[in-house]
Amino acid sequence: MQLAMIGLGRMGGNIVRRLMRHGHDCVVYDRSPAAVEALAGEGATGVAGLEALVAALSPPRAVWVMLPAGDATEEAVMRLAALMQPGDTIIDGGNSFYKDDIRRAAALRERGLHYVDVGTSGGVWGLDRGYCMMIGGDRDAVARLDPIFAALAPGIGDIPRTPGRAGRDPRVEQGYVHAGPSGAGHFVKMIHNGIEYGLMQAYAEGFEILHRKGSDELPEAERFDLDVADIAEVWRRGSVVSSWLLDLTASALAADPGLDGFSGYVQDSGEGRWTIDAAIEQAVPANVLSAALFARFRSRQDDTFAEKILSAMRKGFGGHQEPGKT
Amino acid sequence: MQLAMIGLGRMGGNIVRRLMRHGHDCVVYDRSPAAVEALAGEGATGVAGLEALVAALSPPRAVWVMLPAGDATEEAVMRLAALMQPGDTIIDGGNSFYKDDIRRAAALRERGLHYVDVGTSGGVWGLDRGYCMMIGGDRDAVARLDPIFAALAPGIGDIPRTPGRAGRDPRVEQGYVHAGPSGAGHFVKMIHNGIEYGLMQAYAEGFEILHRKGSDELPEAERFDLDVADIAEVWRRGSVVSSWLLDLTASALAADPGLDGFSGYVQDSGEGRWTIDAAIEQAVPANVLSAALFARFRSRQDDTFAEKILSAMRKGFGGHQEPGKT
Amino acid sequence: MQLAMIGLGRMGGNIVRRLMRHGHDCVVYDRSPAAVEALAGEGATGVAGLEALVAALSPPRAVWVMLPAGDATEEAVMRLAALMQPGDTIIDGGNSFYKDDIRRAAALRERGLHYVDVGTSGGVWGLDRGYCMMIGGDRDAVARLDPIFAALAPGIGDIPRTPGRAGRDPRVEQGYVHAGPSGAGHFVKMIHNGIEYGLMQAYAEGFEILHRKGSDELPEAERFDLDVADIAEVWRRGSVVSSWLLDLTASALAADPGLDGFSGYVQDSGEGRWTIDAAIEQAVPANVLSAALFARFRSRQDDTFAEKILSAMRKGFGGHQEPGKT
Amino acid sequence: MQLAMIGLGRMGGNIVRRLMRHGHDCVVYDRSPAAVEALAGEGATGVAGLEALVAALSPPRAVWVMLPAGDATEEAVMRLAALMQPGDTIIDGGNSFYKDDIRRAAALRERGLHYVDVGTSGGVWGLDRGYCMMIGGDRDAVARLDPIFAALAPGIGDIPRTPGRAGRDPRVEQGYVHAGPSGAGHFVKMIHNGIEYGLMQAYAEGFEILHRKGSDELPEAERFDLDVADIAEVWRRGSVVSSWLLDLTASALAADPGLDGFSGYVQDSGEGRWTIDAAIEQAVPANVLSAALFARFRSRQDDTFAEKILSAMRKGFGGHQEPGKT
Repeated sequence: MQLAMIGLGRMGGNIVRRLMRHGHDCVVYDRSPAAVEALAGEGATGVAGLEALVAALSPPRAVWVMLPAGDATEEAVMRLAALMQPGDTIIDGGNSFYKDDIRRAAALRERGLHYVDVGTSGGVWGLDRGYCMMIGGDRDAVARLDPIFAALAPGIGDIPRTPGRAGRDPRVEQGYVHAGPSGAGHFVKMIHNGIEYGLMQAYAEGFEILHRKGSDELPEAERFDLDVADIAEVWRRGSVVSSWLLDLTASALAADPGLDGFSGYVQDSGEGRWTIDAAIEQAVPANVLSAALFARFRSRQDDTFAEKILSAMRKGFGGHQEPGKT
Repeated sequence: MQLAMIGLGRMGGNIVRRLMRHGHDCVVYDRSPAAVEALAGEGATGVAGLEALVAALSPPRAVWVMLPAGDATEEAVMRLAALMQPGDTIIDGGNSFYKDDIRRAAALRERGLHYVDVGTSGGVWGLDRGYCMMIGGDRDAVARLDPIFAALAPGIGDIPRTPGRAGRDPRVEQGYVHAGPSGAGHFVKMIHNGIEYGLMQAYAEGFEILHRKGSDELPEAERFDLDVADIAEVWRRGSVVSSWLLDLTASALAADPGLDGFSGYVQDSGEGRWTIDAAIEQAVPANVLSAALFARFRSRQDDTFAEKILSAMRKGFGGHQEPGKT
Repeated sequence: MQLAMIGLGRMGGNIVRRLMRHGHDCVVYDRSPAAVEALAGEGATGVAGLEALVAALSPPRAVWVMLPAGDATEEAVMRLAALMQPGDTIIDGGNSFYKDDIRRAAALRERGLHYVDVGTSGGVWGLDRGYCMMIGGDRDAVARLDPIFAALAPGIGDIPRTPGRAGRDPRVEQGYVHAGPSGAGHFVKMIHNGIEYGLMQAYAEGFEILHRKGSDELPEAERFDLDVADIAEVWRRGSVVSSWLLDLTASALAADPGLDGFSGYVQDSGEGRWTIDAAIEQAVPANVLSAALFARFRSRQDDTFAEKILSAMRKGFGGHQEPGKT
Repeated sequence: MQLAMIGLGRMGGNIVRRLMRHGHDCVVYDRSPAAVEALAGEGATGVAGLEALVAALSPPRAVWVMLPAGDATEEAVMRLAALMQPGDTIIDGGNSFYKDDIRRAAALRERGLHYVDVGTSGGVWGLDRGYCMMIGGDRDAVARLDPIFAALAPGIGDIPRTPGRAGRDPRVEQGYVHAGPSGAGHFVKMIHNGIEYGLMQAYAEGFEILHRKGSDELPEAERFDLDVADIAEVWRRGSVVSSWLLDLTASALAADPGLDGFSGYVQDSGEGRWTIDAAIEQAVPANVLSAALFARFRSRQDDTFAEKILSAMRKGFGGHQEPGKT
């Protein structure tokens, strides 16, 4: 079927490529003409603006917006809404905050437009492996887009089937789920990313303990000089902690066992933060997910005012003078 | 080759079975005669005591102890050490504390005996999938036991190869690693389990937020009635959080979406605790791994003295009277 | 000077009483006529509604709103704003979210009204000890209300002076601070409460360890039967952990050493939650403050879905069947 | 009465001074002759070694050891034990691990010697304010030393009495407690320090949020330029978070509002670590106390292997390249 894509970055561009591989017809726009040209060269219909993009589609239209969450997405959705017609659908495939989805869906509904939010996981691997998608929106709008989702999803592949799923929604085993009304897709994706932070931090802490077991700060008799690259690799094979994140870790460690190519500075995105906000709204204890987020905050500073407060107190009660950082 | 097994519980029994499937010759002992008899019926040589077990083996002997960590293992190892001869090897395949391994290995070395500690992951699935093994001990003793480890390990199977491993120890891709001297095997297994706790808690917190998103404590407009079984399933397919633990979660939720068969009481074992002790010894921040452990501690109590202290303070400064638990 | 109070609960009523003790002239309103009558009997001017309240004041008027944060405060402030005249001031002494203050102050400024937000600490003890106040608003409006704040504040009393404060704002040593523009008062009070949660939880965890050191789950040789009431008392005297919260704890434990009068259910208020939101907005690691909040969330549940997820995984990989909760 | 002191550092020296102020007779030894000479000049009897020290005392002797926990204390106690006679008492006033106390007390008991462990809080302020003491040991040995403890303790002073303590041990209100048998004193002191870490971290996190509320990383409309020195001061007066640690913080901030004299590097001592070990042994959730400890661990590193693992994973799944640390 026909789909327009706005935003041809790493994610948007590859989604278009995967759709075209499955025979879909894509109209593409990006504020960078070079990005449009590149995909046009691969078979897409390039356009120079939103008006042209809407004009190039036959109703009922479907436009996928793949832009950074926040102002860029908001502006594109609202401009599109003004150009499109009742029965058309706007898909937000980015990482929007789910309450923005709820608000936008209500605004679009008044004009007879559909709004579908799609949380998309798979990163740079999605083009070949397929994308895992978590979808929110009206049942009919989601159903009409099914060929798109089916093409983007990984499909059942050779992943073992979970017993006991007979009679359940078959789309789920293909790798996409209609999670609920507008906002539900991004809500589920948000929690997905919150969990991702927690999983990553669990591995990170464990590998740091392994890495430092050889440190000369320990008594020599209790020191082990462990090969963390081999340990990551062996855990991929039959252990309880095997996972795709571990596969990536094993690859990184095989290439650079000391990870000297990294500074230790770790960014975070909105979804990790919103997950904690959601936990607080729902009064759910989220000690692990929040600790994972805070570790990233801390990683980006050389020292903190909090730590200076500690030293100031220690000097105050005990006369302790801290040494400088080593 | 020939191996004796002491302890024929879920783990020990299946290890013997897997070894026999690969053509190895097993002598077995358990304090339960029925357990011995069962494996004897499957082809093992059953014996009635440690003396008989040692007598049934040709030197250099290899005896695998698969008993609960602590007193049971300690007693078996020490009794065996008194019965065995220079050049023989005792393997502790249980979940011993690694400092006990270091101590025992030193004691056995004085008698000319080898001590090999093997951390074994794979649980009830190991019989068919194979066991991931983390091994500590002298190079020669570990090398001599290689046919045993090769039989127990999962093998390379259809798990994609990690790039960049050319020239590295080939045993690792088979699913076992010689991590270092005595104690190193159980140290790595200990951290493995510490990570496991963290991974599990990350999923658990995320699923609780999803589960409670439909709660009527939230404003109706922000409530979603999410199908957590479907969400667990879809994440298995192309998402960043896919893992074996997620596979198990998806199975459990497909069978019982509300998990009504569980009370919420969660046990912990020594390894999760020792991981935090190790982090503290090494001055490694382990916020996620410790939070995962503490969540289990809390799960086993109805209420805590700590919480009563909080209520007492709140009454003291604000006159707040807490309601009862709902 | 003249001040009107709306909301005569525990806080509002006592603030009026303390003001009258210092010779100020109070007009009071509450939706409960009995509350109005009670304070009228103590010398205040009772009125039956907001119109009457505004009419009873001479310009420039000052009205203190002491209602639950959220809808009740919002409605009272907005209704008052419609009744009052340029140059008048509305004081929000409750626990409002500071972004609401910023918004309201802007709305009132358009009508020539002043808005002053006052975070008030002191609880049931404030009537006699005085209230610690954190104030946000325009310099002039705050200055005009100085007699009110001076009367409510504890004053310098016999608390030792901090060295090095010569030349600094003298109001601070009296127990009130003009923290900044509208919203700053409640922001500082919010963080105050966030810290309060952390302090309380630190004591709570410590006392639980002391309390359970006598438990028969420990080896008898390492068990101590500690008197936590005496320990709380002794720490009040010369130790590094002495504090007002510890004083309250010592009182509660002297009266009821097992705290049997408490269920373990602990409530939380908006400020503890908003503190974490603020930390996240500012990318500040807040592991202790968030853990303190989450402990309260956990205290209010018998068991959690998260814990059931853990048990389900444990059964999945190890065949572990959890026992029921004791 | 007569008491000998071994170790004349900041703590030991001031304890001797306070005892002499109260008319007690002190024999002193330190491996630094200058330290001995200094106190001899203030009225103590200086000696040149342990033999001379024991010889200078009349039985039943009492010797207070005030040395770093670990080897130094162990050696001094064991050498003293060999020199002393049945009925004599050794006091360990340092920060020993309580299980070492239990072991030492048992060893000394076999020789007819008493062992008393005293956890001492008060830091550099103790000379004038008095020391809060937590004492473990036999009832008789502790009773015989009562004049020493009474002299060192702060006494009841002007700290308000806790209601409901009639009939309770009167020593507690003087500032010392006989907590239980050998080891109990240091156990209680250990938890005291664990709580201290938690309290300090709660303030530290709160002040960091306040400090960074003026940062230009926030939208200008939500920024406040807060004076943290004034805020610390105002909270000392009537607020729920007032404490001695806050007094110290207010002093430090009055002298150096940006705390520019501190590097952010924060040390920790054994007691904070042992508190977590104890919590784990007793299965007590200690999220706040452990987070406080881990914050210190993190403060001492520029970056961590854990953080590099996170970046490596992020690059693996999303192609994210982290920027360098700012």
